[in-house]
Amino acid sequence: MDLYRNLLLAIDFASDANMLCQRAAKMAEIHGASLSLVHVVEPIVTDSAFDTLPPIPVDFEDVHIQQARNQLDQLRQSYDIPEENTFLEIGVTKHEILRVAQEQSIDLLLLGSHGRHGIELLLGSTANAVLHHATCDVLAIHLKKQ
Amino acid sequence: MDLYRNLLLAIDFASDANMLCQRAAKMAEIHGASLSLVHVVEPIVTDSAFDTLPPIPVDFEDVHIQQARNQLDQLRQSYDIPEENTFLEIGVTKHEILRVAQEQSIDLLLLGSHGRHGIELLLGSTANAVLHHATCDVLAIHLKKQ
Repeated sequence: MDLYRNLLLAIDFASDANMLCQRAAKMAEIHGASLSLVHVVEPIVTDSAFDTLPPIPVDFEDVHIQQARNQLDQLRQSYDIPEENTFLEIGVTKHEILRVAQEQSIDLLLLGSHGRHGIELLLGSTANAVLHHATCDVLAIHLKKQ
Repeated sequence: MDLYRNLLLAIDFASDANMLCQRAAKMAEIHGASLSLVHVVEPIVTDSAFDTLPPIPVDFEDVHIQQARNQLDQLRQSYDIPEENTFLEIGVTKHEILRVAQEQSIDLLLLGSHGRHGIELLLGSTANAVLHHATCDVLAIHLKKQ
């Protein structure tokens, strides 16, 4: 009986993505499973009702996406993750993670958790939704407080 | 690098304890880790303000505890779990699970999750608290709806 064949690590570069990736890679190795990475960039919502806010530079989102792509590429190369197993998505974090998990037949979804002070998962408030709606196992990896 | 050495599976006999135990045992085997079991019996709170409720037979709690002990023993024997790794606790479920996890230096806590309809973990409403306060990794094992 194989427990897990397809692991997906959801990362947010705000936290210790490197440590998470290291643990996820080890987990994949132990289980003889493949490892995929997903990072979601949430689009910036602008609303003319708030036009007193300072304007966001038009290329802000492109810059943000490019930065995320670079960080994801770095991780991917460090942990020998094939390019086709790396997903940079734009949208609502919880929906995108669940969609990728489903499309890639993921059987274990890995997330970072800060513990103690609530389930402050890397993914912020979306983490609960992921836990609620995942149809596969979910591993919350405990991050030491920094 | 060992990922996990000490696994603790929290079970509630309301759900598929056998399937959970099988997966947890496999996980322990793959990781070369030990597996412990914990089940918590919540004490029945009686309050004279509610004395219009039908009285609970005085030995109800003893019967409940004995039944839980028998079920836990059966599981323990089926999966070759040493008696000293089996914990039947009486108290508030979330506190007891976290206490046992801490006392036994658990590095991976396993719980059952029903997914889809919210994190209806085996442990009911206490599951979130366990996830919130655990200082180790937590694996939510997805249970198919029955």
